[in-house]
Amino acid sequence: MSAFAAATADTSAAAEQAAFVSAVADQLSAFLTEKHALLAGISTDTLVLVDSIKALVTGGKRMRALLCYWGFRGAGGAAGAEEIVMAGAALELFQAAALIHDDIIDRSDTRRGGPSVHRQFGTLHAKHAWSLDEERFGHAAAILTGDLCLSFSEEMFAAIGPAAGGRARAVFNVMRTEVMAGQYLDILEEVSGPSKPHSTAVARASAIIRYKSAKYSSEHPLVLGGALAGGDPELLAGYSAFALPLGEAFQLRDDVLGVFGDPAQTGKPAGDDLREGKRTVLVGLTIDAAGEAERNFVDGKLGRQDLTEEQIARLCAIMVDSGALARTEAMIQELSGTAFAALARLPIAAGVSAALSSLGHGAVSRTS
Amino acid sequence: MSAFAAATADTSAAAEQAAFVSAVADQLSAFLTEKHALLAGISTDTLVLVDSIKALVTGGKRMRALLCYWGFRGAGGAAGAEEIVMAGAALELFQAAALIHDDIIDRSDTRRGGPSVHRQFGTLHAKHAWSLDEERFGHAAAILTGDLCLSFSEEMFAAIGPAAGGRARAVFNVMRTEVMAGQYLDILEEVSGPSKPHSTAVARASAIIRYKSAKYSSEHPLVLGGALAGGDPELLAGYSAFALPLGEAFQLRDDVLGVFGDPAQTGKPAGDDLREGKRTVLVGLTIDAAGEAERNFVDGKLGRQDLTEEQIARLCAIMVDSGALARTEAMIQELSGTAFAALARLPIAAGVSAALSSLGHGAVSRTS
Repeated sequence: MSAFAAATADTSAAAEQAAFVSAVADQLSAFLTEKHALLAGISTDTLVLVDSIKALVTGGKRMRALLCYWGFRGAGGAAGAEEIVMAGAALELFQAAALIHDDIIDRSDTRRGGPSVHRQFGTLHAKHAWSLDEERFGHAAAILTGDLCLSFSEEMFAAIGPAAGGRARAVFNVMRTEVMAGQYLDILEEVSGPSKPHSTAVARASAIIRYKSAKYSSEHPLVLGGALAGGDPELLAGYSAFALPLGEAFQLRDDVLGVFGDPAQTGKPAGDDLREGKRTVLVGLTIDAAGEAERNFVDGKLGRQDLTEEQIARLCAIMVDSGALARTEAMIQELSGTAFAALARLPIAAGVSAALSSLGHGAVSRTS
Repeated sequence: MSAFAAATADTSAAAEQAAFVSAVADQLSAFLTEKHALLAGISTDTLVLVDSIKALVTGGKRMRALLCYWGFRGAGGAAGAEEIVMAGAALELFQAAALIHDDIIDRSDTRRGGPSVHRQFGTLHAKHAWSLDEERFGHAAAILTGDLCLSFSEEMFAAIGPAAGGRARAVFNVMRTEVMAGQYLDILEEVSGPSKPHSTAVARASAIIRYKSAKYSSEHPLVLGGALAGGDPELLAGYSAFALPLGEAFQLRDDVLGVFGDPAQTGKPAGDDLREGKRTVLVGLTIDAAGEAERNFVDGKLGRQDLTEEQIARLCAIMVDSGALARTEAMIQELSGTAFAALARLPIAAGVSAALSSLGHGAVSRTS
């Protein structure tokens, strides 16, 4: 019996979840230690690649891994099973890869309060006073680090063995394709949104959060866990009915926090999402409901790196005054209601249901 | 019996190779048609992602897939086996992903005579007169397209099933980690090379081509094919003894063509490698052998986007006059000799040996 299996025998859901999180961390640590040794054999100059990945997977809420875990348990998977630990670790590595590339795409200098990976490499360049361009080196090195991390995710998932074939593999594959397509729609909307009809802005933003976020961060991890445990199609459909609206509510909450959140709690500078130009459902509702002058102001200012504090304040005021913020909060309520009603109908053990409920409520009512 | 199996029964090595190349193309086409349908269901706006991948995997020399094929055949794999077609397709998809990201990193506007993927997206942006920055959108979209293609490669490899476990999976994993580490060493050398001792420039450049190129493009594909067919460790070690020096010779030839090749034949503008600042073995030999004034000129000009034709001509002259070009050609000869001697010792069928010899000679004496 593994340490994880021993730790999870005869304990409460909270202790079981903590044991799982700890087992995922151990799995990631052991895996990355192995990769560290492989890279050390190539050149110690390359160790910075695995070190920056290690720092990224050490933090985070482990939301996707936890959904995967309870999906597995709800479908009858054993509490101490190694395959769910590896699946959780694979999801964490995939998310780290996505964050590394996202931060390049969004030109985000910070990640969880520290420098983003491309900034770490930029700083390395500056520290040694190397030649050519610091920013270009940072971006190139971070592209490669993200690629390496993406490969690590796949390697970890494949190492699960036969249990990761069939339906579980299909979910893992679709998850990756959909999130990348969703991210593309997101950057496409940033540049093409202003030239498209404002009446369909909400519909376009809704499609983006479905693929980029709700399916990726919520539905697919839960269904993946269920599939790994051999859950039947009806159960997996029930998982989707819960996790998809939950994930949408989660993303709407994220969008609200990205504009109105407390930087001290979110770890992101105020106005960061507005400077990035994310055309969220909140923005879509604003554009749809605001008067022409306000709409033109929003279209003209979103995505500008040089936004002033006054301009950020005016964008926020337009979101409030147009009723868009209140409508977004109402959507979060409605989607949460749909999600939790579906959760109540799931034929799973009470402890698993309670754990999913707790995760879900944390996701939609958080402040960071 | 599949069409591929039927086509490869009782035919010559050349016909067999042609049937394999055609089967890989069919496999890629069927796979990408499936992905096209999945993306169409998300949004027709995302179809450009799969279309640009399709265009990339349609061209190319299929060098890696062919080495993989003959490695498979040499280890006793059947001529018509589906798993080797899928492995070849997975290698082609991986290479396409690497090219997409490489072209961003190297700021290459062209690929195989057409626009590189980030330039395709930049042109799409310009055509629609979208807002914000064209170049930034192009890079972001190409990062995502490369990520998608990397996932496709893994999906294809995993779909092989149990045969792709064990040693074959280990080779596939190490291949990915090593090529990304090698690429990092390559971009690191571009920025840090001038501040490092010129006496070790050749050694540093040799390490880069080993990991970035020789192992990735030659050794790993051949060994992967052998492992897929269940080849024993001695045979696989013999494959390495042939393919590693061959791959090094191949890359040295590539470096020479990158500076002295005919743009009409290579499809790359003259001086492109010098503007990119690639610190190749050819450059290392130049720096090591040239006088101080020439060395400072090379260190000061390599990697500058604004190189004039006169400066390119002087760089070429220094490479010739220092004896670096002649020494590189001598290294190509020596490495080729080592490779073909190892090939002659391999315990494989004469037809397989002849096919590998033909591929090898083509690789080191090509002009494009």
